[in-house]
Amino acid sequence: MNILKSIRKQMILDGIDYYLVDTFDPHGSEYICDYYKLRQYFSGFTGSNGLLLVCKEKAYLWTDGRYFVQAAKELYKGISLMKMGEKGVPTVREFIKNTVRRGESIGLDGMLISSDFGAFISEVCKNKKADLRTDINYAVSLWQDRPAISYTKAFVLEEKYTGLSASKKIGQVRKAIGKDSLFVSKLDDIMWLTNLRGNDIECNPCCYSYLLLDKDNCYIYLNKTAVNPAVKKYLEKQGITLREYSKVEESLKEYVEMANGCIRFDKASLNYKLFQTIDESGKGKAEASIIEGMKAVKNKTEIKNLTEAYVYDSVAVTRFIKYIKEHAADGLTELDAAAYIDKLRGKLPGFIELSFPTISAYDANAAMMHYEATEDNYSVIKPEGMLLVDSGGQYKTGTTDVTRTIVMGKISDQVKKDYTLSVCGMLRLMNAVFMKGCSGRNLDILSRGPLWRKGTDYKCGTGHGIGFCLNVHEGPHRIGWQKARNGMEPALVAGMIVSDEPGVYIEGEYGIRIENILLVTKAMSTPDGDFLRFKPLTLVPIDLEAIDTKYMSSEDIEYLNEYHKLVRGKISPFLNKSEQKWLENATKYV
Amino acid sequence: MNILKSIRKQMILDGIDYYLVDTFDPHGSEYICDYYKLRQYFSGFTGSNGLLLVCKEKAYLWTDGRYFVQAAKELYKGISLMKMGEKGVPTVREFIKNTVRRGESIGLDGMLISSDFGAFISEVCKNKKADLRTDINYAVSLWQDRPAISYTKAFVLEEKYTGLSASKKIGQVRKAIGKDSLFVSKLDDIMWLTNLRGNDIECNPCCYSYLLLDKDNCYIYLNKTAVNPAVKKYLEKQGITLREYSKVEESLKEYVEMANGCIRFDKASLNYKLFQTIDESGKGKAEASIIEGMKAVKNKTEIKNLTEAYVYDSVAVTRFIKYIKEHAADGLTELDAAAYIDKLRGKLPGFIELSFPTISAYDANAAMMHYEATEDNYSVIKPEGMLLVDSGGQYKTGTTDVTRTIVMGKISDQVKKDYTLSVCGMLRLMNAVFMKGCSGRNLDILSRGPLWRKGTDYKCGTGHGIGFCLNVHEGPHRIGWQKARNGMEPALVAGMIVSDEPGVYIEGEYGIRIENILLVTKAMSTPDGDFLRFKPLTLVPIDLEAIDTKYMSSEDIEYLNEYHKLVRGKISPFLNKSEQKWLENATKYV
Repeated sequence: MNILKSIRKQMILDGIDYYLVDTFDPHGSEYICDYYKLRQYFSGFTGSNGLLLVCKEKAYLWTDGRYFVQAAKELYKGISLMKMGEKGVPTVREFIKNTVRRGESIGLDGMLISSDFGAFISEVCKNKKADLRTDINYAVSLWQDRPAISYTKAFVLEEKYTGLSASKKIGQVRKAIGKDSLFVSKLDDIMWLTNLRGNDIECNPCCYSYLLLDKDNCYIYLNKTAVNPAVKKYLEKQGITLREYSKVEESLKEYVEMANGCIRFDKASLNYKLFQTIDESGKGKAEASIIEGMKAVKNKTEIKNLTEAYVYDSVAVTRFIKYIKEHAADGLTELDAAAYIDKLRGKLPGFIELSFPTISAYDANAAMMHYEATEDNYSVIKPEGMLLVDSGGQYKTGTTDVTRTIVMGKISDQVKKDYTLSVCGMLRLMNAVFMKGCSGRNLDILSRGPLWRKGTDYKCGTGHGIGFCLNVHEGPHRIGWQKARNGMEPALVAGMIVSDEPGVYIEGEYGIRIENILLVTKAMSTPDGDFLRFKPLTLVPIDLEAIDTKYMSSEDIEYLNEYHKLVRGKISPFLNKSEQKWLENATKYV
Repeated sequence: MNILKSIRKQMILDGIDYYLVDTFDPHGSEYICDYYKLRQYFSGFTGSNGLLLVCKEKAYLWTDGRYFVQAAKELYKGISLMKMGEKGVPTVREFIKNTVRRGESIGLDGMLISSDFGAFISEVCKNKKADLRTDINYAVSLWQDRPAISYTKAFVLEEKYTGLSASKKIGQVRKAIGKDSLFVSKLDDIMWLTNLRGNDIECNPCCYSYLLLDKDNCYIYLNKTAVNPAVKKYLEKQGITLREYSKVEESLKEYVEMANGCIRFDKASLNYKLFQTIDESGKGKAEASIIEGMKAVKNKTEIKNLTEAYVYDSVAVTRFIKYIKEHAADGLTELDAAAYIDKLRGKLPGFIELSFPTISAYDANAAMMHYEATEDNYSVIKPEGMLLVDSGGQYKTGTTDVTRTIVMGKISDQVKKDYTLSVCGMLRLMNAVFMKGCSGRNLDILSRGPLWRKGTDYKCGTGHGIGFCLNVHEGPHRIGWQKARNGMEPALVAGMIVSDEPGVYIEGEYGIRIENILLVTKAMSTPDGDFLRFKPLTLVPIDLEAIDTKYMSSEDIEYLNEYHKLVRGKISPFLNKSEQKWLENATKYV
């Protein structure tokens, strides 16, 4: 492939032996905008996780199990696929450690790699007496048709949505950091703190920005084109000083030199270049994001808004299910289905955009957790099997996320069994009552238990946090049985919201996922302590055509009937007569 | 009280400002023999957890919530009770840190305090420029009628019981430590490794001993009276060199000076004196006990033996239940009940002693988790309410532990509800199927869930490991939802055994505990991974008179009936006709 040749030509000119390109924007965002998709451009591989290492003779791409098939198809000739987690395949870190020799040179862009990984490579280079250059970005010279970066207009999410002014939130953070300073690079943390929103990354209502806070000052770094006079005035009023986004490095450097206390930062989202700026001063203090913990606990106003958003959103999804089932035999495609539900959502009050590209996966496609139908590659829905639809919206009143797997016609008994057990797991977690202090690690088995009993496991977490008109995936809490890589295990706290999405994925056959979003609420306080429980925000019927009660306990059946009663009660008032009749039947007692 | 006066007199002579007495024998044993019960002798308090600090004017005793009432009753005049965990009550550590002044002196016996606590006090003294003396033990001069320490005869537990020779076990440990040395002070670790047993501590078949191991040598330190010629010969054959118990300190000192590699040790069980000996060399390496992890996973022979031991033991407990229910109106006391079950156990094959003093607690007494009826304080059983019996035996074929709460007559609906929910929790955990890699923290909610739903919680773990003809409480694994204090969270592994004992404790009213012992076994391997499940070793009927099925799901009912079918099948063959008839009824389907 030409591009590798061009890269190697540049490498020779620069005296670089290894050119490393990760999947990382300067803020460690989960969704990367096209401008930062260097790894994709240089390797051909379009998946969401991958690292490219171009050596003098060879080139390698590391990715995980979700993408082995896809990467093998897409990778340019001359790039070897490194299957992460497979036996005998070294990790990127092992590879670098074992390969780099004395006197060699590694090139990368320090803004496009995490502080943690950068520090590792730097350490290796130091030990090997190799050279690390962090100013190498061949997209500048080699990516001819590189898309422009978008700096959209920032807007203010009013207090009637957020429940708390930016200045009050800033006050809370100041209280937590005392005399220290805090440098924030994670976009949704900055958006939450300032009550600003933007549209720089699709599906994430964020502006590219940094924020620097201490007891006296609060600086936000935004691109000048992003700020209109109203926002400028708003920032002033909230006590936030505007600075230029592109000047962050020098501004930070200057600040760090003068600072008295520690500069706290979140290692996971900080890029290596800015990490170095802080680290060189010796004043840096890595910690788990303080803001993430505050943002995760929704306030009363947010909860009121969210509850409403989920009702509207659930009405749309319910209507979609009715539609798609009634048109099972009409030759619709996965794309048609996605377009239909997207259109329904688009009409809802406060709708901004989707919270992620709708997953509409028919039959075997649904076995791929991150399948995306495209114009070049989609299936036609037939009146048999199932359609999995995982979708959500960004509203001023919150962010939604919901999955239903919908029966389109005949399904096998095995599918019914897997479907029913997934539903039982979802319901058991949803109905848990648990002691204050429990984390998602304590609860996960409720959701996974019915499937584990038959030797089935889904290879992902059970649940993630969700932003408020922000990112659809948000920490710090989660539901899963394994220890988190960062060793953190935050307890579930009243006001958090979390997804509950067990499923079954049989490669080449079918995929099932049933996802409700739950709000953590107080259950009761007794002499034995404080107890919490969940309240479902999602109110969408579960397809009874795939339920076989012989796989359910009396408790499971009770949970299902109670949930469907709730759905009926909340959703019916928004439906017309014939829709109500349909819902009545879709939520009948089993 | 005179004793405090006498202590203070000595303190003045020695120039000591604080005399500290903990509950700790030189090996950090859970059960302390009478010889080492200094804290009890000096304070009057007989509970199993307490720390006495005698100051010049005042004296304090710290203990936990289980013992507040008892300690208040028993403590000698002049000693203030420090209620651990209550608001405003400083911990011992905080108290020492805040109280000790420059130039003052703390006295304690370094052999009778943990390395961890000793190191803490040493650090405080260093910072405060205070003096720490670790050779102060006033029992020597002030405890006139101090019981003798017992060094019983050691005996060899044959390979037909243990399944593996001492020399092979030593080989395994040597493989794990490489070129390091290992110093072992925990008695059951040494007993497991050497296949020796003793009787120096009631209910713990252990000899007072230390062990020092490296790639060439294995030294066991035993009291010379403990070793008969046969044992001496046995040790030689296993490659174990005998040394004198009382000479351990100087021997260790000498060894440490000469040693090349690290000296590994288990911080939790090592006393401060010996810790210092290792620590001073700079060669010490604290770690979680390697042996504990090996000992916890029972081998095939042990499992075969254990399975048999539990059948015999369960037959005895079943007979006891029949007896006690038939004699509910006969005016038996708690002590009579305990004596009866102890007698039944005494006749079983391979019986050595009890694995802990039988808890026989009637009605409100059962609300105290660690109640012990004594000649001075016991209740008479009436034909109403319930009797909780928690008991177990030491057999050459293993260690047992089982609790049943037995209906003696009329009980309230509330009791039935709590009883039924406890049984449901026990059964749900027992029937769990779970992914390899899960720890007890992932599973605990299965057991606690039914009680949590109504706001009830038991303030202890759900389950503990159990030794093989060794201590009834054994690590490293456990079942509980909270993080362990040491931060360790070992996964459950096939071959481990663990208790499953949810319960309800209502102060002044009643106590319920239902305890089965479970063996971790392989459930299945599928493309999704390896799965584990439990096999119940305990086979004793659950009292159906306290079961109300309206609190059970269809799944719970199925679990109960299946368990009772298993009990019937395994236990019936050992019973006579009338007993069989009784069991038939006691295990009938609900």
